[in-house]
Amino acid sequence: MKEVSSSETVLFYDTDCGGVVSNIAYLRYVERARCQLFEELGLALAEMEEKAVFPALTRSEIDYLSPGKLGDRVTTTARLVEVGKVRCVCEYEIHRSENEAEKTLLARARQTVVLLQLPSGRPHRTPEAWRETPA
Amino acid sequence: MKEVSSSETVLFYDTDCGGVVSNIAYLRYVERARCQLFEELGLALAEMEEKAVFPALTRSEIDYLSPGKLGDRVTTTARLVEVGKVRCVCEYEIHRSENEAEKTLLARARQTVVLLQLPSGRPHRTPEAWRETPA
Amino acid sequence: MKEVSSSETVLFYDTDCGGVVSNIAYLRYVERARCQLFEELGLALAEMEEKAVFPALTRSEIDYLSPGKLGDRVTTTARLVEVGKVRCVCEYEIHRSENEAEKTLLARARQTVVLLQLPSGRPHRTPEAWRETPA
Amino acid sequence: MKEVSSSETVLFYDTDCGGVVSNIAYLRYVERARCQLFEELGLALAEMEEKAVFPALTRSEIDYLSPGKLGDRVTTTARLVEVGKVRCVCEYEIHRSENEAEKTLLARARQTVVLLQLPSGRPHRTPEAWRETPA
Repeated sequence: MKEVSSSETVLFYDTDCGGVVSNIAYLRYVERARCQLFEELGLALAEMEEKAVFPALTRSEIDYLSPGKLGDRVTTTARLVEVGKVRCVCEYEIHRSENEAEKTLLARARQTVVLLQLPSGRPHRTPEAWRETPA
Repeated sequence: MKEVSSSETVLFYDTDCGGVVSNIAYLRYVERARCQLFEELGLALAEMEEKAVFPALTRSEIDYLSPGKLGDRVTTTARLVEVGKVRCVCEYEIHRSENEAEKTLLARARQTVVLLQLPSGRPHRTPEAWRETPA
Repeated sequence: MKEVSSSETVLFYDTDCGGVVSNIAYLRYVERARCQLFEELGLALAEMEEKAVFPALTRSEIDYLSPGKLGDRVTTTARLVEVGKVRCVCEYEIHRSENEAEKTLLARARQTVVLLQLPSGRPHRTPEAWRETPA
Repeated sequence: MKEVSSSETVLFYDTDCGGVVSNIAYLRYVERARCQLFEELGLALAEMEEKAVFPALTRSEIDYLSPGKLGDRVTTTARLVEVGKVRCVCEYEIHRSENEAEKTLLARARQTVVLLQLPSGRPHRTPEAWRETPA
């Protein structure tokens, strides 16, 4: 429940003229997995506007380990690893699936997220349920 | 065979502070569907580098009809509608799926594509097979 | 007054693995020039939230004429060419500056813009002053 | 010489529906400053293809401190802070300029960069001159 995976194909707009996936594109892969993780944790994208609670990053770090290429099938795994009163930490692994059996780790990331109540912008307490079961 | 559909969820990076999907994000949805269309036509992304044949746009037009929102499930349909010696025309429709039965048309696009042989950059003839069956 | 130019350098994130500027990046160049044009017409970005009036595209078309490359200095010119009651049309030319004297036309674009009053989303009349002096 | 600044205006495509600058947009601001820093260090964008030497990130970290908004004038400062045989470290500060006298720190970033020789992808030694004067 506290770990999700999302997959997508590397398109032209993910690459740059160095011939590989742009460092910036990985942040989109991570965002897709993070949104899906939050959805499964009960914070659905489609309800955020109504509730006026939005996740905001306070820190993001990423290690680029191996270059992705056009047409690669990349899978991003997101895990909730720490939950505090107003902030939580997510970790990500982005793999290329070579085939059924093999995969290569392209990047590893870690982000600190706070939930903000808009329009005040004040931190919103993380849901009690997020703290119950350690990942 | 000459029509494909791809779906994705509207994420934060697709939206802007006007509260709706950015005009630029639709070009990404269209690119995803176009790449999938070309894949089914025999021009797979993963083989483009090897063959050094890349599609390039010479014209793109898009009508924005209804605003997409965060969390929407959007489906882009791509169709090959004209095939000449060196250029072809693709048409796209981007819908939001409300539920099983209903959908709303968000945008409609049309692009002219040429295949380029790199590194010369010379136009590459469109495959004979693309001309056989009209869409 | 009704024509502005903005310049920027082609960075990695503007290019793709075809080795040239991505078709999507041109839309960012156009947006920069459009925002600057609207700023000079009295609709400053920083005031949009306060006034809750945002420009929205209803149509965008672009012809890609020559490929831009990493490090190119590109200049985008935006002109207001038609002003109706609730919509206006902007035209753009994107050039690469080779040197003081020479420039190459990379792309030409045309967009229809409506001003929307948020949160209702109703069209907002274009300012009277925009109609006075033809470009 | 080893510190540069670049400025740009926050546009719609930099923001998301949370009403503030997207976490991803900061990576573009950082890339603009990094490219300019490398240009001043003798590694001009326009010559990279010819020399087939490209910078690649191996690590990126960013702390988001205060939200940027549409129309803000942001200035990114890049500094070369460590230079090894094949890798170097750059640090960045992204400020909003309130006026002549005041500025607010929006984000702080740090990236590890290696120079790669293409097409082999082998690391290229950092230029001797980069090691001479500490920043």
